[in-house]
Amino acid sequence: MSQELYFEDFYVGQKMNSLGSVKVTAEEIKEFGQKYDPQPFHLDEAAGEGSFFKGLAASGWLTAAIVMRLRVQSITVAGGMIGAGVEEMRWTQPVRPGDYIRTEIEVIGVRQSNTRKDYGVVRTRTLAFNQRDEVVLRSTVNFLAPLRHPVQA
Amino acid sequence: MSQELYFEDFYVGQKMNSLGSVKVTAEEIKEFGQKYDPQPFHLDEAAGEGSFFKGLAASGWLTAAIVMRLRVQSITVAGGMIGAGVEEMRWTQPVRPGDYIRTEIEVIGVRQSNTRKDYGVVRTRTLAFNQRDEVVLRSTVNFLAPLRHPVQA
Repeated sequence: MSQELYFEDFYVGQKMNSLGSVKVTAEEIKEFGQKYDPQPFHLDEAAGEGSFFKGLAASGWLTAAIVMRLRVQSITVAGGMIGAGVEEMRWTQPVRPGDYIRTEIEVIGVRQSNTRKDYGVVRTRTLAFNQRDEVVLRSTVNFLAPLRHPVQA
Repeated sequence: MSQELYFEDFYVGQKMNSLGSVKVTAEEIKEFGQKYDPQPFHLDEAAGEGSFFKGLAASGWLTAAIVMRLRVQSITVAGGMIGAGVEEMRWTQPVRPGDYIRTEIEVIGVRQSNTRKDYGVVRTRTLAFNQRDEVVLRSTVNFLAPLRHPVQA
C-alpha cells in the first residue's frame, strides 16, 4: 500500500498485512540488548540457557520496534504515522535468533480527535507471528491520521 | 539498588527512581529511526520542520526502549526482569535531540502468577520526564519476579 492515506480512508474491519517478513538475527538481538535491555538472556547464548527463556531471546522492546517498522511499511499515512498511545501490548512467545516476523493489522475503531480537529484517531489491533504462525506479540495501538477535508472553524 | 529482588521484596507504594538521566542525541534518534521507524520526522531535521512535530523527534519506540534501560538499571530482579505485558503507554511530549530522560517508577500491584506458581506479577506505573520535568511517556507495565520461597506442589 503506497498510496498516502487520510483519516477518511480508514474503516473498521480494514486489514493491512505486512508485505513480507523480517528475519531476526542473534547479532541484532545482542546489539539491541546491549543498548536498551542489558540482561543476560538478551546478550549471550550461554547465559540465556540458564535463564527463564532457556536460550537467547529478543527483548520484547526489540520485537515491538520491529513490529513498528512493519507497520510503517504497510500503512502509509499522509504526513506520517503519529503514535497516539498503546492500549495493550503482550509478548506471548519468545522471539529467537533466526525467527521470521510478520504482522496482521486490523482497524478496530475510527473517531475524530478530541484535541486536534484536523486529525482523526485510528485504533488498530496488531498480531505479530513467527514462521510457525505462533503469535509472538499482540497489541492495541492508536495513531493519528489527518483529515483530507478538515472542517474549517 | 543492586540487591537482587524477589517477589516478596515488592510492595504497593514502593518507589524506584532512575539513578540518573540519559541524554538523547540526534545521532541516536536518526539511527533508531532508520532501523525501526523510518519516517521523515525521525530521520532528518529539515524534513521534521515541515511535519506534525515541527522538528526532529525521537520515535516513541526509542523513548520506550530508553525507559526500559532505565528500568533494568534501577530494578534488579533475581534472574532478570521478564516482561508480562503493557497495560497502557502514552507519549505525552516529543523527545528532542539533547533532551535528558529520567524515570520514576511506583509499584501499584503485586499478585501471584496464575500460570507460573514460582513467580509473582509486579504491576508498575512509570513516568518518564525530560530535563524540564515534563512527562514525555507514562506507562503501566507488568513484570514477573521469582518467589524467594516457592510453595512446593
